[in-house]
Amino acid sequence: MSIPAGANTSIILRLELERSTASFGGIATAISEAGGDIIAIDVVRTDKLTTTRDLTINVTDSKQTDLIVELLGRQAGVTVVHVSDQTMLMHLGGKIEMNPKYPIKNRNDLSRVYTPGVAQVCTAIAEKPSLAHQLTIKRNTVAVVSDGSAVLGLGNIGPEAAMPVMEGKAMLFKQMANVDAFPICLDTQDTEEIIRIVKALSPTFGGINLEDISAPRCFEIEERLVEELDIPVFHDDQHGTAVVLLAGLLNALKLTGKELSACKIVVCGLGAAGTACAKMLAAAGAANIIGVDREGAIQRGGRYANRGWQWFADHTNPHGESGRLSDVITGADVFIGVSGPGVLQVDDLKRMATDPIVFAMANPTPEILPEEAEPYVRVMATGRSDYPNQINNVLCFPGMFRGLLDCRAARVTDEMKVAAAKAIASVVKDEELNETYIIPSVFNQAVAERVSEAVIAAAHEAGVARRNRDKAPVLS
Amino acid sequence: MSIPAGANTSIILRLELERSTASFGGIATAISEAGGDIIAIDVVRTDKLTTTRDLTINVTDSKQTDLIVELLGRQAGVTVVHVSDQTMLMHLGGKIEMNPKYPIKNRNDLSRVYTPGVAQVCTAIAEKPSLAHQLTIKRNTVAVVSDGSAVLGLGNIGPEAAMPVMEGKAMLFKQMANVDAFPICLDTQDTEEIIRIVKALSPTFGGINLEDISAPRCFEIEERLVEELDIPVFHDDQHGTAVVLLAGLLNALKLTGKELSACKIVVCGLGAAGTACAKMLAAAGAANIIGVDREGAIQRGGRYANRGWQWFADHTNPHGESGRLSDVITGADVFIGVSGPGVLQVDDLKRMATDPIVFAMANPTPEILPEEAEPYVRVMATGRSDYPNQINNVLCFPGMFRGLLDCRAARVTDEMKVAAAKAIASVVKDEELNETYIIPSVFNQAVAERVSEAVIAAAHEAGVARRNRDKAPVLS
Repeated sequence: MSIPAGANTSIILRLELERSTASFGGIATAISEAGGDIIAIDVVRTDKLTTTRDLTINVTDSKQTDLIVELLGRQAGVTVVHVSDQTMLMHLGGKIEMNPKYPIKNRNDLSRVYTPGVAQVCTAIAEKPSLAHQLTIKRNTVAVVSDGSAVLGLGNIGPEAAMPVMEGKAMLFKQMANVDAFPICLDTQDTEEIIRIVKALSPTFGGINLEDISAPRCFEIEERLVEELDIPVFHDDQHGTAVVLLAGLLNALKLTGKELSACKIVVCGLGAAGTACAKMLAAAGAANIIGVDREGAIQRGGRYANRGWQWFADHTNPHGESGRLSDVITGADVFIGVSGPGVLQVDDLKRMATDPIVFAMANPTPEILPEEAEPYVRVMATGRSDYPNQINNVLCFPGMFRGLLDCRAARVTDEMKVAAAKAIASVVKDEELNETYIIPSVFNQAVAERVSEAVIAAAHEAGVARRNRDKAPVLS
Repeated sequence: MSIPAGANTSIILRLELERSTASFGGIATAISEAGGDIIAIDVVRTDKLTTTRDLTINVTDSKQTDLIVELLGRQAGVTVVHVSDQTMLMHLGGKIEMNPKYPIKNRNDLSRVYTPGVAQVCTAIAEKPSLAHQLTIKRNTVAVVSDGSAVLGLGNIGPEAAMPVMEGKAMLFKQMANVDAFPICLDTQDTEEIIRIVKALSPTFGGINLEDISAPRCFEIEERLVEELDIPVFHDDQHGTAVVLLAGLLNALKLTGKELSACKIVVCGLGAAGTACAKMLAAAGAANIIGVDREGAIQRGGRYANRGWQWFADHTNPHGESGRLSDVITGADVFIGVSGPGVLQVDDLKRMATDPIVFAMANPTPEILPEEAEPYVRVMATGRSDYPNQINNVLCFPGMFRGLLDCRAARVTDEMKVAAAKAIASVVKDEELNETYIIPSVFNQAVAERVSEAVIAAAHEAGVARRNRDKAPVLS
């Protein structure tokens, strides 16, 4: 897998050099020939026969790195032990840390935060368990739980390998919305066991963010946990994507002057994200959704073994359209793709209604490339950061959990998700709204706050908030 | 439970006042009469009939607080809604937080710590799982796991109520030894389930600190996890206490000029801590240990249902002594108490050998009070901070796990524990050593470092270290 290292990044090469044969002049020349720039040399260890050195080298991309390694490999007495690029170096030792909120300066502090004084706090919680939401990290802490079964586009890479994603997510939770998130990657892929474990972990946490768990297990796990726990559970791959999609679509429809309830919407790719997107659209008022997978359109009233597909059969395709994507796309106002690369053709675009809206969210390669689609669509969005209108979950989950924790919500309702989508959409002002700006940037500071306020208001309306809006300074 | 609030602490009283009847003059007088000093008044909310206010008041102890509440309760139109003291306030929102190690400043950072760049790190770990120790928080993170079944002296108060203790422990881990610790309080007390859960959580962590789990379940849980996991598992209530006890005893013996192997040692109270202390002493060379519980001395070669007692029967009491504590204490050089208040009498002390050493570690009230014992003992230690020679686990666990993580130990051996005890003892210099200073203060900065170095050296000797001593700056 070749990933660009980014412009002007630095790498560290660890070289083992035979003292009798290796020539440092030869090494320097090879690196320079490949376009690299040596900026530091550190001796790691040395003995009679060999010496090990770390060379820090500026390069412009990963091809340059490959070339350097190749040229050095040809030098006599030189062994390239490791190559570490900037991305690897940013991960050394992990990306997050646990800190005390204040130092224990003396015996007096120690006896309050630990024995014997802490016993008073423990007793208070034992007598009134809801105080855990105020007197422990449950107040502000979310578990990011994965089993490593469906990580990014990498698939079932297991719990250890999933950790860097979950740590990155924890960084975003804190930076965007001051939520303390802790990554938990489980060494089991058994549905029942995952449910039992997350339930057992729940006393510590104020919310559960499920992540990168493969379908259909993710549905069962989420549903059961929502039922059986009294803290909110949110499968981000489903609902985060759906909320941000809806946000973008609301703004795209504003541009084209169409009503969601009147649009024909084709959802292509009926995995976890596709099903969640369709449910979200239905909750927001969409009345004519057609789900399409490799086998073609899901039939109204049909019987399907797949639970997600059965939802489509029960709730979508009111006019009984049938056939493949290229059939049902005819007259569609909106295409929502969460399938695979190249699934949508230019000919399909030509058969859509006027002002076509295309969300081609397959990652990393969309259902149709924006440069191909551009002449035929009014608004185009993808999952990628290198095109306009990126549909990125980062716009949803930090503010969503900020709101859930602050109002101590027991669960996430459809109304709260719709409210979050509208809040994200509202960050793009009317005078700013245009075909290449329907969704705010992931770095827009206003988003998380706006989302959290909307979620809190919706939670109070739905009666799932358990905390008064007055932010009392002491125990309440 | 009445716990001193500490000298000159402040409390916050929330009062609900009937506007028509409550007199603020009367309130102020009552507080002043009780010895309190109002330092701030905040209006929380107000309506036509009532007003709610938070009064911050300086007091000298919890009796003053009780008196204030009592006097205010007699005032017309005044309801005391809450009393929050400094200890409670220090717990608001929890005591620890999760932070990114560096900010995500721009798109370039984001694409390295999260998608798409993070995929490269995930792939590297998937290909070589041991890289998790370098590229994720596993490198420096310990789970502090409890089921809330045996918390402090409070007993089985459950997982939510146990959290403040585990958070306090996490604070100490970080402050004393820069270990990131995360508290996990489990909503199950089933032995097998706890074992399964901790195993499933293990990909995230570099070590497991078991805490406040009741006997005999704690033995089975620890043993099984040690066997089945490849990261170190340490039940602090057993081994932390045992290590610090041994440290104190080694210095006490140095003072009296006695050899551990020649001493008669009576261990009183044969729960988890007592058994662990006896095993630790045996591992360090003690040859004449006698275990005593309420039923009397454990007989060499006897048969006992309790596994801990059976260990005593198999390994201790070489001379077949029998009877109650007051019998077997005769001629003992050392008394180790982890039982209950007042178990040891002055008459018992009089029957001990010359230069008696007494570790009366029952909490909060020792087996004999130091002021009673003083005329009859040479060295006295307790678990309390208000007497000299406090045996406190804080001296062990931070440095122990610092060492375990740094050498990537697979397990904790007896040799590592003995090495840790010797390291703690060594912090008290020969010229400082005296009857009231056999063990360093919990705030002594040298302890954790000394312990960690000793643990690393012992791990290498035992062959359980999995990381080279060279601290390589890049992946190795």
